[in-house]
Amino acid sequence: MTPSNLPGNRKSKWPVAVLGATGAVGQMFVRLLADHPWFELKELAASERSAGRKYGEVTRWLEGPPPPDLIMSRRIIACDPGLVSAPIVFSALDAVVAGEIEMGFAQAGKFVLSNAKNFRMESDVPLVIPEVNGDHLGLLECQRTKRGWSGAIVTNANCSATVAAVALAPLHQKFGIRQLFLSTMQAVSGAGYPGVPSLDILGNVIPFIADEEAKLEREMLKLLGSYEDGEVVSATFKVSAHTNRVPVEHGHTICMTIGFEERPSPEAAIQTMREWKGFPATAGLPTRPAHPLVVTEMPDRPQPKRDVNAGNGMTVTVGRVRRDAVLDLRMVALGHNTVRGAAGGSVLNAELLAANGAFDTA
Amino acid sequence: MTPSNLPGNRKSKWPVAVLGATGAVGQMFVRLLADHPWFELKELAASERSAGRKYGEVTRWLEGPPPPDLIMSRRIIACDPGLVSAPIVFSALDAVVAGEIEMGFAQAGKFVLSNAKNFRMESDVPLVIPEVNGDHLGLLECQRTKRGWSGAIVTNANCSATVAAVALAPLHQKFGIRQLFLSTMQAVSGAGYPGVPSLDILGNVIPFIADEEAKLEREMLKLLGSYEDGEVVSATFKVSAHTNRVPVEHGHTICMTIGFEERPSPEAAIQTMREWKGFPATAGLPTRPAHPLVVTEMPDRPQPKRDVNAGNGMTVTVGRVRRDAVLDLRMVALGHNTVRGAAGGSVLNAELLAANGAFDTA
Amino acid sequence: MTPSNLPGNRKSKWPVAVLGATGAVGQMFVRLLADHPWFELKELAASERSAGRKYGEVTRWLEGPPPPDLIMSRRIIACDPGLVSAPIVFSALDAVVAGEIEMGFAQAGKFVLSNAKNFRMESDVPLVIPEVNGDHLGLLECQRTKRGWSGAIVTNANCSATVAAVALAPLHQKFGIRQLFLSTMQAVSGAGYPGVPSLDILGNVIPFIADEEAKLEREMLKLLGSYEDGEVVSATFKVSAHTNRVPVEHGHTICMTIGFEERPSPEAAIQTMREWKGFPATAGLPTRPAHPLVVTEMPDRPQPKRDVNAGNGMTVTVGRVRRDAVLDLRMVALGHNTVRGAAGGSVLNAELLAANGAFDTA
Amino acid sequence: MTPSNLPGNRKSKWPVAVLGATGAVGQMFVRLLADHPWFELKELAASERSAGRKYGEVTRWLEGPPPPDLIMSRRIIACDPGLVSAPIVFSALDAVVAGEIEMGFAQAGKFVLSNAKNFRMESDVPLVIPEVNGDHLGLLECQRTKRGWSGAIVTNANCSATVAAVALAPLHQKFGIRQLFLSTMQAVSGAGYPGVPSLDILGNVIPFIADEEAKLEREMLKLLGSYEDGEVVSATFKVSAHTNRVPVEHGHTICMTIGFEERPSPEAAIQTMREWKGFPATAGLPTRPAHPLVVTEMPDRPQPKRDVNAGNGMTVTVGRVRRDAVLDLRMVALGHNTVRGAAGGSVLNAELLAANGAFDTA
Repeated sequence: MTPSNLPGNRKSKWPVAVLGATGAVGQMFVRLLADHPWFELKELAASERSAGRKYGEVTRWLEGPPPPDLIMSRRIIACDPGLVSAPIVFSALDAVVAGEIEMGFAQAGKFVLSNAKNFRMESDVPLVIPEVNGDHLGLLECQRTKRGWSGAIVTNANCSATVAAVALAPLHQKFGIRQLFLSTMQAVSGAGYPGVPSLDILGNVIPFIADEEAKLEREMLKLLGSYEDGEVVSATFKVSAHTNRVPVEHGHTICMTIGFEERPSPEAAIQTMREWKGFPATAGLPTRPAHPLVVTEMPDRPQPKRDVNAGNGMTVTVGRVRRDAVLDLRMVALGHNTVRGAAGGSVLNAELLAANGAFDTA
Repeated sequence: MTPSNLPGNRKSKWPVAVLGATGAVGQMFVRLLADHPWFELKELAASERSAGRKYGEVTRWLEGPPPPDLIMSRRIIACDPGLVSAPIVFSALDAVVAGEIEMGFAQAGKFVLSNAKNFRMESDVPLVIPEVNGDHLGLLECQRTKRGWSGAIVTNANCSATVAAVALAPLHQKFGIRQLFLSTMQAVSGAGYPGVPSLDILGNVIPFIADEEAKLEREMLKLLGSYEDGEVVSATFKVSAHTNRVPVEHGHTICMTIGFEERPSPEAAIQTMREWKGFPATAGLPTRPAHPLVVTEMPDRPQPKRDVNAGNGMTVTVGRVRRDAVLDLRMVALGHNTVRGAAGGSVLNAELLAANGAFDTA
Repeated sequence: MTPSNLPGNRKSKWPVAVLGATGAVGQMFVRLLADHPWFELKELAASERSAGRKYGEVTRWLEGPPPPDLIMSRRIIACDPGLVSAPIVFSALDAVVAGEIEMGFAQAGKFVLSNAKNFRMESDVPLVIPEVNGDHLGLLECQRTKRGWSGAIVTNANCSATVAAVALAPLHQKFGIRQLFLSTMQAVSGAGYPGVPSLDILGNVIPFIADEEAKLEREMLKLLGSYEDGEVVSATFKVSAHTNRVPVEHGHTICMTIGFEERPSPEAAIQTMREWKGFPATAGLPTRPAHPLVVTEMPDRPQPKRDVNAGNGMTVTVGRVRRDAVLDLRMVALGHNTVRGAAGGSVLNAELLAANGAFDTA
Repeated sequence: MTPSNLPGNRKSKWPVAVLGATGAVGQMFVRLLADHPWFELKELAASERSAGRKYGEVTRWLEGPPPPDLIMSRRIIACDPGLVSAPIVFSALDAVVAGEIEMGFAQAGKFVLSNAKNFRMESDVPLVIPEVNGDHLGLLECQRTKRGWSGAIVTNANCSATVAAVALAPLHQKFGIRQLFLSTMQAVSGAGYPGVPSLDILGNVIPFIADEEAKLEREMLKLLGSYEDGEVVSATFKVSAHTNRVPVEHGHTICMTIGFEERPSPEAAIQTMREWKGFPATAGLPTRPAHPLVVTEMPDRPQPKRDVNAGNGMTVTVGRVRRDAVLDLRMVALGHNTVRGAAGGSVLNAELLAANGAFDTA
């Protein structure tokens, strides 16, 4: 079968691998790649402990129908660039091990699409949400020069930072954010599996997620920064965040209060978000939703249970856009933390690279 | 039986009634008054529809062991001041009917301790959390003069406003709040019974509670206002709120970001909250907890499931007191919405009135 | 557009209406019919109170993306056969009003596909799960003769009875059930909207659903009965049920312990269920899943969260088939209560009627 | 302070230790023993990993207010009988290590009150619920003779078996159970901490708990067996169980269908349960509730959220006692799995031993 819609002159799908394929985010990668029009999931890599065993035997499949037998019966290989033949790898590795392994893959000439936090804030590593800052991929040139890697590392952001940045990008681009207060209500799937014990969260709220506020604050500024002269200049507004865990399966809800350089009315803000198209080169990418950002006027939305799957989990939904008595605007944003905020974001990054020709030699 | 610890020369408990006794807040009043050292629950009033029937027959008891048979078998009477003999009434009435009924009781010479929103913002009606602003009861003099009632109406505040005000009172008194951002995660019991449908909230967050943000903002300023020359002068800082419903049974959790006139360090703020004693005349009141405000240093607390019953539901717990990058401090407060934030608050108001001698002729 | 796959010589879709379109089951009908290959959703009927208003205005859409604007902006009409032009109506009416209204529609010549309990146990009214007992539609002849209606009423069963009957039909047909013990754990959506208050079910189990055990027991016997000589002869085995409500959104889980006339081994039971094709005439119907009944060998399945959407909610999943120390077999069945057990079941009934030519004059 | 109500001539509390004090059941032991009238909690033992550290440092306190500082600051010791001085130890050890450690303590002369499953089915080890089969403690004589231990091991039963046995004991004693079908809905606290991942149980039911059905069936028969001539003769009726995990924090709910030798009416069954006093020697023990078994006639009770704390968690509540169409009776029982079904049960066992004089030399 020859896919008809591959970018460039490409005749066959690119072979790809998933590192850390057995965990929660790894499973989401497998799901999104099992039938992808451009990528063919060739290899599943995980810890030494699982290597050699069948994927279906060591994976407790968490959600939805398990992938086809072809995948479930594949033997897991170790996360070793010498064993992985695919030139493109998606990393769902835990931060404890991701640093060294991902670097090894990049040195060995692989394109690493990483969901781990390790390299996100490195000045020569793109931290990308394609519609928001796809141009930041320009950093790869600098990365190769500086590190001497034949491969590359591209990262996607923390799940909360991603949802917030998609909602705020059009407003920041047009009106200039000056001050930002965030308060999140985050789903348990954000903590992986087994993750949050049920005794901690059933009927409860935990007003603390380790290191999350710091990640949210710093990644937001890089995401909304500008790419100039070969480097990313971070945004400079002030961010203040509370992050909370709530008994929701998927979907991070974020209450936002925003001060701008040029104060928009709620109507102007809504119009700006609705007219936003995102980074042009993302148009037509397979995983890009028709609308990366949707504004609802239903008074009690967005809600995780009802809006999380908008755009197959790639659309961020904003609601309750209203004036604020202290700053300028208040609004609520919601997005799917393991799709838009994790695996889906990485896949979209890879698609943008593919469309840009970055994989032409891969 | 002659209670030994009644205020003044009082020889017997004061007879009291509950208006709206069958609903969720009404049941909480019944629970708190079933065995109160100063008050004797004599009458249960509810809608005409229930009048004449036994309390236990028309009440779906929501929580904990039902009250004694003596109460469950009592006949409900209508909410008519001519039928209620008790001089002191606790009102758990819905706002739709509370206005007229409560006024009728006050005109008829009753002391009305109201949980309804109708009169809270009237300039001559005390909106009271005893430890925070017990001195606001001074408004009653003005109320009688102005309205010519032989009785009186005293209100307690919205549940979220109450939790926030207890946490903020000592800080405002010492450092002067300048700006306040709040984001709440509120329990379903705040919406009464049947209240929130399970299809709306299981595994979900609803980022909207009708009229709640406005109530929270305006009541907060009155609560933290000062009583001067016979009137209450509201606080003047700016408040901005997001209010959310979460799948928690009891306990409103509030994320706060605060700017002060005189910026305290987190340590100074913690010390100030810990040293706070509250309005002195509340010391020793039966329902007043030993500590109206507790600061925890456990990193992931307060949590509704684990802290809501502190001080029998009358203590507000604050945690995560930390610096803020935009304003001065961030912290999280939690309190029991139907105890401290509703029935328990009203009972404590009545106790303060009793201790002050307001009921001496009752 | 001329649909290509309509039964018989039919050239255009059949126009259909939904009665009670605004409630939870009504919404599910609207969802399933919004883009149906054989039926065109022409009319939305509801109570007088809603009549004349737009569907989208009076309907709090509960789940998933709302239907297209064409439907949301349609005016609701009253449930009056003189106002409804469609010859086929799906009834999601509450039992309190369903009896009279459905009878009126049948008298007026309409085919009524009813989800209400009112007529289910009438001897001349088919109670049908197509794959299980599609031949029971033969009762319609008797119904017309006896009642003189130009239309007809066909019912689908209670949601728990449906799930249980799909799981048990192949076993009963082959081995003859002798004794049956059921214990259900039912989702809140089974109670409609607003339905179960969150204060009753968050973190709780309610071991009682009004009238459910009786319905489950009696409908099961009619469903598994045989159609002989123009009438349905109910099955005669003994059924004993416990029915419980649990904090699950969709999906009824049923623990079953079964004694048979001819005791099968677990392996034989599994093979029988896997080989079961169901009533042959259902093959190829649009809403019929490829596999009405699936047996899983995963040790901790079926689970509502993970299996409820199998076959787009039309597949019943059985697991944990094992020997029983007292009777013969134990197993667990799970199905989607508002799809297979309500709206989807009615739509499949209509499809079978259409394929049989029952609507040829409609 | 000399407690006034110690059994016999005892002048001071017995010193006791908890093995496995940091886990969920261990914490419950600590809570119940922190202020016990007969026992003084002297030592906290846990794994080597925790030994030497303060209890409050290594224990994530799960529920309610943490114990007094005196306990939280105590140094943990290893589970070694040479290091534990208390003559009475409560074991909350995991079954993986409990066997060897508990045996070591018994050999070293300690009384071991064990919550682990390892010795429960040994013919010379009492498996005791004091009100149900307190006379089984007579096995200790046989145990000492046979094993040559100067100490002893007494076990309490699996949490589900305990709840079921308390509900069924009076009925079995009077009417003789012949057949028993059980279907449980068990709380997550039964799996310890971290236990059940929230991603597995939020909005879900898991119809499987490893080894639970077998434990429930076999322990039930030993619990309801009779002590004759120095040994326990198990009951001989047939038991069939389904065990399910539900999103409830505490409280196992059990649906029961029962066939008897002498068929009682529901009224007779209710009267029998209400009149049941339990093993006489338990009267007055500190942890024994006034009513070990309560029958409610509220139609939708018992419910875990509303009834689990009856009798401070030591009372089992039965409801919905009704006829069964297949066997004789159906009913629902509920009890607190970590109090009555675990730590509280062990403490009550120790109290019965103390009252019997078993600890006189301890």
